[in-house]
Amino acid sequence: MPFTPARPDPSQPSVRINLLSDTQTKPTPAMRAAMAAAEVGDEQVGDDPTVNALCDRVAELLGKEAAVFMPSGTMCNVAGLLAHCRPGDEILAHRTAHILSREGGTHAALGGFQITGLDGADGKFTPDTLRTALHPRTRYEAAQTLVSVEQTANIGGGTIWAKADLDAVVAIARERGMATHMDGARLLNACVATGISAREMSAGWDSVWIDFSKGLGAPVGAVLAGTRDYIDAVWRWKQGLGGSMRQAGIIAAACIHALDHHVDRLADDHTHARTLARGLAQIAGIDVQEPETNLVFFDPAGAGITAADMVKALRVKGVTLATMDGRIRACTHLDVNAAMIEDTLGMVRDIVRGV
Amino acid sequence: MPFTPARPDPSQPSVRINLLSDTQTKPTPAMRAAMAAAEVGDEQVGDDPTVNALCDRVAELLGKEAAVFMPSGTMCNVAGLLAHCRPGDEILAHRTAHILSREGGTHAALGGFQITGLDGADGKFTPDTLRTALHPRTRYEAAQTLVSVEQTANIGGGTIWAKADLDAVVAIARERGMATHMDGARLLNACVATGISAREMSAGWDSVWIDFSKGLGAPVGAVLAGTRDYIDAVWRWKQGLGGSMRQAGIIAAACIHALDHHVDRLADDHTHARTLARGLAQIAGIDVQEPETNLVFFDPAGAGITAADMVKALRVKGVTLATMDGRIRACTHLDVNAAMIEDTLGMVRDIVRGV
Amino acid sequence: MPFTPARPDPSQPSVRINLLSDTQTKPTPAMRAAMAAAEVGDEQVGDDPTVNALCDRVAELLGKEAAVFMPSGTMCNVAGLLAHCRPGDEILAHRTAHILSREGGTHAALGGFQITGLDGADGKFTPDTLRTALHPRTRYEAAQTLVSVEQTANIGGGTIWAKADLDAVVAIARERGMATHMDGARLLNACVATGISAREMSAGWDSVWIDFSKGLGAPVGAVLAGTRDYIDAVWRWKQGLGGSMRQAGIIAAACIHALDHHVDRLADDHTHARTLARGLAQIAGIDVQEPETNLVFFDPAGAGITAADMVKALRVKGVTLATMDGRIRACTHLDVNAAMIEDTLGMVRDIVRGV
Amino acid sequence: MPFTPARPDPSQPSVRINLLSDTQTKPTPAMRAAMAAAEVGDEQVGDDPTVNALCDRVAELLGKEAAVFMPSGTMCNVAGLLAHCRPGDEILAHRTAHILSREGGTHAALGGFQITGLDGADGKFTPDTLRTALHPRTRYEAAQTLVSVEQTANIGGGTIWAKADLDAVVAIARERGMATHMDGARLLNACVATGISAREMSAGWDSVWIDFSKGLGAPVGAVLAGTRDYIDAVWRWKQGLGGSMRQAGIIAAACIHALDHHVDRLADDHTHARTLARGLAQIAGIDVQEPETNLVFFDPAGAGITAADMVKALRVKGVTLATMDGRIRACTHLDVNAAMIEDTLGMVRDIVRGV
Repeated sequence: MPFTPARPDPSQPSVRINLLSDTQTKPTPAMRAAMAAAEVGDEQVGDDPTVNALCDRVAELLGKEAAVFMPSGTMCNVAGLLAHCRPGDEILAHRTAHILSREGGTHAALGGFQITGLDGADGKFTPDTLRTALHPRTRYEAAQTLVSVEQTANIGGGTIWAKADLDAVVAIARERGMATHMDGARLLNACVATGISAREMSAGWDSVWIDFSKGLGAPVGAVLAGTRDYIDAVWRWKQGLGGSMRQAGIIAAACIHALDHHVDRLADDHTHARTLARGLAQIAGIDVQEPETNLVFFDPAGAGITAADMVKALRVKGVTLATMDGRIRACTHLDVNAAMIEDTLGMVRDIVRGV
Repeated sequence: MPFTPARPDPSQPSVRINLLSDTQTKPTPAMRAAMAAAEVGDEQVGDDPTVNALCDRVAELLGKEAAVFMPSGTMCNVAGLLAHCRPGDEILAHRTAHILSREGGTHAALGGFQITGLDGADGKFTPDTLRTALHPRTRYEAAQTLVSVEQTANIGGGTIWAKADLDAVVAIARERGMATHMDGARLLNACVATGISAREMSAGWDSVWIDFSKGLGAPVGAVLAGTRDYIDAVWRWKQGLGGSMRQAGIIAAACIHALDHHVDRLADDHTHARTLARGLAQIAGIDVQEPETNLVFFDPAGAGITAADMVKALRVKGVTLATMDGRIRACTHLDVNAAMIEDTLGMVRDIVRGV
Repeated sequence: MPFTPARPDPSQPSVRINLLSDTQTKPTPAMRAAMAAAEVGDEQVGDDPTVNALCDRVAELLGKEAAVFMPSGTMCNVAGLLAHCRPGDEILAHRTAHILSREGGTHAALGGFQITGLDGADGKFTPDTLRTALHPRTRYEAAQTLVSVEQTANIGGGTIWAKADLDAVVAIARERGMATHMDGARLLNACVATGISAREMSAGWDSVWIDFSKGLGAPVGAVLAGTRDYIDAVWRWKQGLGGSMRQAGIIAAACIHALDHHVDRLADDHTHARTLARGLAQIAGIDVQEPETNLVFFDPAGAGITAADMVKALRVKGVTLATMDGRIRACTHLDVNAAMIEDTLGMVRDIVRGV
Repeated sequence: MPFTPARPDPSQPSVRINLLSDTQTKPTPAMRAAMAAAEVGDEQVGDDPTVNALCDRVAELLGKEAAVFMPSGTMCNVAGLLAHCRPGDEILAHRTAHILSREGGTHAALGGFQITGLDGADGKFTPDTLRTALHPRTRYEAAQTLVSVEQTANIGGGTIWAKADLDAVVAIARERGMATHMDGARLLNACVATGISAREMSAGWDSVWIDFSKGLGAPVGAVLAGTRDYIDAVWRWKQGLGGSMRQAGIIAAACIHALDHHVDRLADDHTHARTLARGLAQIAGIDVQEPETNLVFFDPAGAGITAADMVKALRVKGVTLATMDGRIRACTHLDVNAAMIEDTLGMVRDIVRGV
């Protein structure tokens, strides 16, 4: 199986309804205009005013001293953990966490870190599970120096870490002298869903990042925030990983546009997800996880069709979505509207009925 | 907690009965004589006849083409895995495996390998558990290139991997193009206990090593075996890790002596372990795992004393043993005889009775 | 000294003439329009038509099977070498090469590679120097698996590797089974200056990349080319480093625009560089290296002013350029015209005269 | 070329005079007796009295707080540098230093360190050369955190670093916040030759180690010394590299014996080296480097025979020595006496004469 992504298959019908991923949103005309008009400079030497403005704004949003722009959320994790840890360190995270299950072993390969996958329902471990996994520091065991959470927990079902659990995890980490990292790829979904501010959600977490090319709809970019000293250490790795860019204001402008125009509307995505989930739940044999944000996980096996076959049947009808861990994941976002949800439900019903 | 081991505490009573570890056996007079008389040369350039003889003998014993001498079992694991895997690779092993729980994160730190800890009773995972943990190779997941077992499984209770399970694991690995590594620190215990030869136990495993400074009673040394090409690759890392020695025939002579004189007698250690386990099981409230080889795990909590307190109380009486994962581990070996087992049982009874 | 780049100092006069770096060009209106109109998709899953078109075009230009888009030239080097080499490998390059002197030790840190810096005039080693540095493969020496050149050699003075020397280096590498990597950040400058095609310059080099945010004037992006299998291996690391993006067609559109409109005009930059060098050479006491492309290195020490002081004095007058290895580097590019060169020469004359 | 060392070739005449390496000395009968009688314990848990005594003695000898026993000098370098540096760090050493030229790229592979090889006559760089190679810390350059010297400089000709130069290097390192490491494989040769104590030679060096299996004649072992905190950090890596042993008192006893009986006699080796060098210098056409300790480098090319052919011709006559960098290296040691030197000189004369 090659690592190079396959080019689009021209024999496939075109996609009319994209429930595959919120990473696939296309920039809106207004966002394109913002990019075209962006004031730019050399980001690598601190001279791009749009990147600087974006970083200041995210630092403020998350209640941190400083922030840094990155070409991807993955690089926020990679550079972010490289700046926290040393070879032979152990990182604790949920066993479905993106850093463990979706980043190709990069934290071991590039950083020399052992990630321990903790168990727990819905992509979240309990504070007790964390406490049980901790051990004293000895020559014989990896040094447990960091705990990481994912808010929302993607593979867990787009679920939200309760503020109390976040605080409890931070308290344990503080007690043990461990650093805390929040993969906030979809943090703003959690904030919009709960009404808790991003600053409050991030309180106590040493490093937090948000992704602009998911629900926020920008083409490229993520921003990682923390203390000034920490972000300074991250810059060394941003440079070494090849994440320092030049006139990056072009893409940062889209991120600022997204902060201005695409945050509150995440509530629409959550509404669409709930509508989809309720509709699916009414189809006999389909098992649906109640969505908390913009991800709907469901299993049609009880209706006599496998997840893989359902995905294939929907693709033929112009709907694209993904299988994940044996279930189907549908993702709502900027390019999905209420009518598309209804259309999709109709198609699922038809497929189950064998139409 | 410092990494440097503590010097002996002169205020403590001396140890009369060592149930702490078979790594602590002292060389016998005959073994010392063998060392003193050893013919030696420069091991690093292939010129030590005693080391060469030992390697040939272990290769033959394990049914492999070639073998290499190492200063420790840990280096067999470290160099052994470095020769098999590349950064970003994933190694599958039981979650209590020595490589994951007792080697300080070294495989991530030095090799860039992610170790995934599989669940399973008694330190062993089932072939099904392994199969379920496998995934296709993608850019997003670490490359699963090696499966490792520990024969016997130390923290699992000195338990023995059944030959059929070993074969099933090998078959899955072959099917997926994965390498197979056996940490055989106490492999000969398993062979003596089951009557299955070391060659048979090792069949299908790409790399297998045995430790001479555990039950076999030598002061220093372990030998790793595999194909000629594999051992050649291991040599590069043995050199780079600092494991190439000079007139190592001195210590290899003890290993040869151990092969000649200390293998069959492992049966005595197993007998002593069974005797100890049965005696403990007769004490009300003590929960004992039936031993398969030379390790006895028990928990005295039901008798109203914690594992830690029991260990302390026994130490005062001149008996030393270890707590592991909340239980007590007693280890029988060359320096433990039947009388010591009886003595120990008497002391445990006294402690439980509050004498 | 912090790693975080300093924000612009508002007390400094604004820059009217930027000779600091061709990385600092601003996108032209036409380029901005191309970006605003770009057709986009999800680059990470192979679905961005503009990125695909750019990659196909660069592969064709360089005569390679395949190519991959990257957020920076540094990532072309990092992912490019990770895909070629293994930990403990030795890479041979000129001692001033970007990979050795300007990438923060990243190849050792992330890849485990030892880079040996070869001597040689003007940023280039001779084939003989390479041959002398080679040794047989032993346990005691790092494995020499790759040779890298920089075309043009930046710190060497923007100098051009002669085609015959490139061929000779390739021949030695082939003979020894080593891979060959060309850091072609400014390869097209060499092609325009010599009239040798990029395909010809790249012939025999296993991996070659060009940077679009240098003389070509795009805001962000570089493309690395090689065999299909090699680019497949690079994709694994692009993902792991955090270089996979989403609707990257926005920035790739600027790169396509640059290929269409900004290649031939590199000749103007070379003319401006020559004009500047000749003007400087006429100022008594200024020592100038004859430029081969768009970089002019000069030392004003003989005129009674240090390089650092000259740079400061010019900055006050609105001209920015850099010191490098004790000399001044002036870089011509898209945003520098003939009048600016004349202005700069006038200012240098004034400064030397003490005006 | 395989990494596995070749077994001895039975068709070759046996070696009567070993000038190949002081690593090849055989333990004396008294040393064997000391090993056979050694009091031992479990070194890995701090319980081996002989290892403890050796470490205390070496710490005292070198004027350091603490010391740790290792299976080889290479591991002193590997664990020693791992405890000092982090990935992306740059280490400065002479380009012929053992850590750069003879340890297989292990410092890049395992630690992520870039080693920069400094120029300089006789295996030593000048303080000025060091100073010139230093640069400020930036994102673009590896972090220069350690300087290493080799006392004596092996490939440099067994040459001695002058105390004043050692002090000057330490002063520069202190000024720049860099750590200092002395590879003292043959430090005691330098001490015996100069009359400067090991403590004085080591003053100001953060980590220093001596090898017992070179001129001191022990079969296996080296000891690394430094501050208590540093040695504590080294212990983590000793464990992770597989350098923790068990009843290592057996081999440590030989090291103690060597300290008692084999230090002063290094003067004999130096006398033999001088005798050999003077004898060789009297043979027309042989170019000899004046020896400072126990290594004699010479080139017979002027006498009409290549170094390689001379080595082969001597091997046939029962003398073994090595070529290194195009010259022949002869090494005197415990197993070489005055008569052997005279014999060797006679054979060289015969070979040159074509006898």
